[in-house]
Amino acid sequence: MKSTYTFSDNLANMKPSAIREILKRTADPSIIPFSAGNPAAEAFPVEDVRRITAQVLGESPVLALQYSVSEGYSPLRDAVRKMAEERYGVGTPEDDLIITSGAQQGVEMTCKVFCNRGDVILAEDPSFIGSLNAFRALGARLAGVPMEEDGISVERLEAALRENQNVKLIYVIPNFQNPSGITMSAEKRKAVYDLACKYDIVIIEDNPYGDLRFAGEDIPPIKALDTEGRVVYCGSFSKILSPGLRVGYVLAPKAIVGRMVVAKQCEDVHTTILSQLICERFLCECDLDAHIRRIREIYRKKCGLMLENMEEHFSPKVSFTRPQGGLFIWCTMPEGSDMLDFCRRAVEEEGVAVVPGTAFMADENTPTTSFRMNYSTPSDEKIIQGVERLGRLTREFVR
Amino acid sequence: MKSTYTFSDNLANMKPSAIREILKRTADPSIIPFSAGNPAAEAFPVEDVRRITAQVLGESPVLALQYSVSEGYSPLRDAVRKMAEERYGVGTPEDDLIITSGAQQGVEMTCKVFCNRGDVILAEDPSFIGSLNAFRALGARLAGVPMEEDGISVERLEAALRENQNVKLIYVIPNFQNPSGITMSAEKRKAVYDLACKYDIVIIEDNPYGDLRFAGEDIPPIKALDTEGRVVYCGSFSKILSPGLRVGYVLAPKAIVGRMVVAKQCEDVHTTILSQLICERFLCECDLDAHIRRIREIYRKKCGLMLENMEEHFSPKVSFTRPQGGLFIWCTMPEGSDMLDFCRRAVEEEGVAVVPGTAFMADENTPTTSFRMNYSTPSDEKIIQGVERLGRLTREFVR
Repeated sequence: MKSTYTFSDNLANMKPSAIREILKRTADPSIIPFSAGNPAAEAFPVEDVRRITAQVLGESPVLALQYSVSEGYSPLRDAVRKMAEERYGVGTPEDDLIITSGAQQGVEMTCKVFCNRGDVILAEDPSFIGSLNAFRALGARLAGVPMEEDGISVERLEAALRENQNVKLIYVIPNFQNPSGITMSAEKRKAVYDLACKYDIVIIEDNPYGDLRFAGEDIPPIKALDTEGRVVYCGSFSKILSPGLRVGYVLAPKAIVGRMVVAKQCEDVHTTILSQLICERFLCECDLDAHIRRIREIYRKKCGLMLENMEEHFSPKVSFTRPQGGLFIWCTMPEGSDMLDFCRRAVEEEGVAVVPGTAFMADENTPTTSFRMNYSTPSDEKIIQGVERLGRLTREFVR
Repeated sequence: MKSTYTFSDNLANMKPSAIREILKRTADPSIIPFSAGNPAAEAFPVEDVRRITAQVLGESPVLALQYSVSEGYSPLRDAVRKMAEERYGVGTPEDDLIITSGAQQGVEMTCKVFCNRGDVILAEDPSFIGSLNAFRALGARLAGVPMEEDGISVERLEAALRENQNVKLIYVIPNFQNPSGITMSAEKRKAVYDLACKYDIVIIEDNPYGDLRFAGEDIPPIKALDTEGRVVYCGSFSKILSPGLRVGYVLAPKAIVGRMVVAKQCEDVHTTILSQLICERFLCECDLDAHIRRIREIYRKKCGLMLENMEEHFSPKVSFTRPQGGLFIWCTMPEGSDMLDFCRRAVEEEGVAVVPGTAFMADENTPTTSFRMNYSTPSDEKIIQGVERLGRLTREFVR
């Protein structure tokens, strides 16, 4: 008799993400991939990585190949703490730092450490689907809080804090948010932190894109305000060095990091040590500032090219964000538009993949006429060609 | 006001493992580390890894540094399926394969996919603490089934299947089990599989050490019997290539792997792609058979050296297993011995670290007079010196 399977309640009903299904189509090289979220291939410091990796395997092969500790390679932890303090002004003597397998694992483990099944996480609506799915897979319930031009609606956040039982975490991406491209103002960062204090809640501050600012002025992270030990700050090497290496980190109060070390032992023992050694040498030996200046310029140009062409070709009835950094532009069609049909026709008729906004909502049934576009993955030629085709479709679609 | 934290029920009460605390002491280089579980440093194919890594970064740097897919690098998945079929006789057209961040993640995700909080997992008693903790961290309840010389007690396993409600999984390590060193006989593998069929249960077969056989004859995995799609087979490159690269795999029925891909997206998106590329080239370009013959010889010698010295120096009242492979020897003192005191005195007075058997029990309060010794990590000199010191202590301790 063949076995039938009774899966856990948390995993039984999860679908592979809508993005994933659309990304499958983009394996077809004839499809223009505005649906992806990859760093630009030309942003990788390939020569540095080659040299550093050869050094590491030449000098310390056993260190690079042997088991290591769950909290992460100690010299890397020190170098990241130093970088976090110097670049972002975050980290106090009451904080500790753990290396994670990408910021994804940091966000996921924070949920694991705090949430029982049924506990509530408040998230920006829309928000990053990878984090939303991680919360769902652990049985947390999501409540979305609408976004405004300068970040999460503080009024609605407070309402959600009052209305929901068992809220454990507030999840925000303050810089060049995925998918909206929106940056939270300094005033709102302070207001969100004050609400966390008032309602005795912990904030997950996810900042994978913070270094990719190509316009406007840096705004200090919420973590920089953290006198009460309420902010779990998740950072990553994915956008400044390489996502394939899978190295991120969490800077958080010691008691929280202590629980995360236990969780990490159970998930993957430790993050690939060769990756950690590469990141450590990269921070210590290479000119990070110069590298970041170079990649910001790449993204500034690509974003500008996409926006310029959107302004020329898109129906004026479609509005879109003008991000100051990061990888994404959020487009919104007039109320009543059938956005899902638009996305379907975009890929099937025009050969251009974008991601339907529903994928990013805390509740996938929340109506939205928005979709996400990415400018870091496609070549300049593809940006021009794809925006022109999409533009034609918007004019046909939104009369 | 400083924040206080209310952690999740699953994580709030977990302690860092006892092994971890003992391992901390072994950071002191004057302590002889019979407590570890690391592959021997001389078993790493350093030259191969250097050459392959330079090739990969020379030829395919963007592939090696960019985001990849959650199920794993397709050529590696193919190469591992081929290896699993040729070397172990496992894998059918109804199975699929996912690359995991070490076998640890494969075991952990299997629990996540199947178990609600409070569901029961039956495990060999003793068993691998990393897996037991992964199950605990997901809220599963553990029920231990005693080990016999030829593996798990089949009678007690059936009793446990009858007595426990909501048993979801049976977790076994059939080859050179960690910590006992015991190998499950072919008869028992069949009996365990038959019980899984009778009670409609899924088996996790964890086989990290299978290639490290240095005595006796290979026994086919339980997975080779799997006509009903009930066995989740977890393998790893940690013991044959490198644990630091964090590459393992799960071979299981397609529906199960499908759920695991969703779980993996949420945990770490994908396994370090540079590590996957190194493993793929290693399988395709290097002589795996010759490499495995070489490392088996290393472990055969180290195990023989430890056993020989134990026979000479240990009190005859201390019994111990004679493993046919793997990394561990399991020692048992006479009933009534204060094993915890023995382990404490071993490290404090003799400078030799071993792991108390309690660390490996499904219920840490199960009385045991056993402790675990490892021969792969210490040098030959340290093996001789450490066993002599421990032997002196056994004779003093067990009169």
